[in-house]
Amino acid sequence: MEETPLYVGKAKELYPIEGSKNFRVHYLDQATALNGQKKDQIAGKGQLNNAITSLIFEDLTNQDIENHFVKKLNDTDQVVQSMTMIPLECVVRNVATGSIVKRLGIEEKTEFEEPVIEFFYKNDDLDDPMINESHISLLKLLSPEQVNEIKEKVRQLNDRLVTLFAKANIRLVDFKVEYGFNENGEIILADEISPDTCRLWDMDTGESLDKDIYRKDLGEIVPIYEEVYRRLKSI
Amino acid sequence: MEETPLYVGKAKELYPIEGSKNFRVHYLDQATALNGQKKDQIAGKGQLNNAITSLIFEDLTNQDIENHFVKKLNDTDQVVQSMTMIPLECVVRNVATGSIVKRLGIEEKTEFEEPVIEFFYKNDDLDDPMINESHISLLKLLSPEQVNEIKEKVRQLNDRLVTLFAKANIRLVDFKVEYGFNENGEIILADEISPDTCRLWDMDTGESLDKDIYRKDLGEIVPIYEEVYRRLKSI
Repeated sequence: MEETPLYVGKAKELYPIEGSKNFRVHYLDQATALNGQKKDQIAGKGQLNNAITSLIFEDLTNQDIENHFVKKLNDTDQVVQSMTMIPLECVVRNVATGSIVKRLGIEEKTEFEEPVIEFFYKNDDLDDPMINESHISLLKLLSPEQVNEIKEKVRQLNDRLVTLFAKANIRLVDFKVEYGFNENGEIILADEISPDTCRLWDMDTGESLDKDIYRKDLGEIVPIYEEVYRRLKSI
Repeated sequence: MEETPLYVGKAKELYPIEGSKNFRVHYLDQATALNGQKKDQIAGKGQLNNAITSLIFEDLTNQDIENHFVKKLNDTDQVVQSMTMIPLECVVRNVATGSIVKRLGIEEKTEFEEPVIEFFYKNDDLDDPMINESHISLLKLLSPEQVNEIKEKVRQLNDRLVTLFAKANIRLVDFKVEYGFNENGEIILADEISPDTCRLWDMDTGESLDKDIYRKDLGEIVPIYEEVYRRLKSI
């Protein structure tokens, strides 16, 4: 009998765990881009993203950065705490590339003195529009104080991730994370952190080690994701 | 001999005044929409916007809301203080209409509990993109403290303008203003406040009393702008 997922995302499914308040996240062998217009099955991708995310969240826990991760369950699945997700994509940028280059006329590869933080409203019908803090209040997603709390959390997270990836000779260019409320109403890091959700550049060659390989049709992503995992694991 | 303007906008020109640090603003009989794609000469429009803006800025001065306005010079011109303009369009919304309806999926005519504030980066090449506070820091337009100062100023301004227009039986739906630094480095309200830069709805009928008449080809704007001026003048 097939289980029914509580939630189906572009590359993950969420399942209840009988007798537990926790959930099981199942990583799919699926890649999407351009808000789902491009979509492919890629054998081995789910396993790699599960491995990489698990490794990173374990590091964050060791660094006292609170998050939803409980444990890796098997090759493609992990256990996470139950969360009421906040429908915001929090984007942090350390280097200019992608949409910000065109939008603000900034030169590609400009290094930012301070990380740039952007919020996007998760809403497929609206194509996930970028929103500001006034819109976040209007949509009753978070109070102004909670926005400040998330900005502080995401800056701390960025500091740690930049350091972690640097040890793997990888530059963390930008990334997207999501937060949720736990059962005590605390704002906790959730979602995944993987080459699907980060832009990662090799520190020596500048080559992409992330989903841009898929977005831009630059080659096979599995060997690239394997390389990221291998480097992170050998730190 | 024709004078050379220091700055040519879509509906105004700025000229130096000999022997003075102030500037002369000349209001043009010109209307534009869709970032300049639609453009027409409309006799009498410059005179009306000069009259309406002058009347509103005089009221703001009386209300101790600091601004660049010095005096009305003649039918189409006014004297303003010299400013180093901040390349930001500050938009304040009290009621949902226009871009925010489509962007955030909010129902047309929704009344906001709190005014919604948006910033757009004035840059014709980039089509004036909406930006957030992190981008304002990145582009070195303002410090975070100065952004808070402008947000506070624009809220106070909105409170007064809502009250003023209500006395003329007009609902202030939304508006755009710009700020500049005066020679002491203080942030001062500049630009114009007119039916070109506000959405104004008749409180009884809900009909547009602003540039939407031109944007949406709903009729002649001069009689409408005359009506706004007549109502404001008779308060």
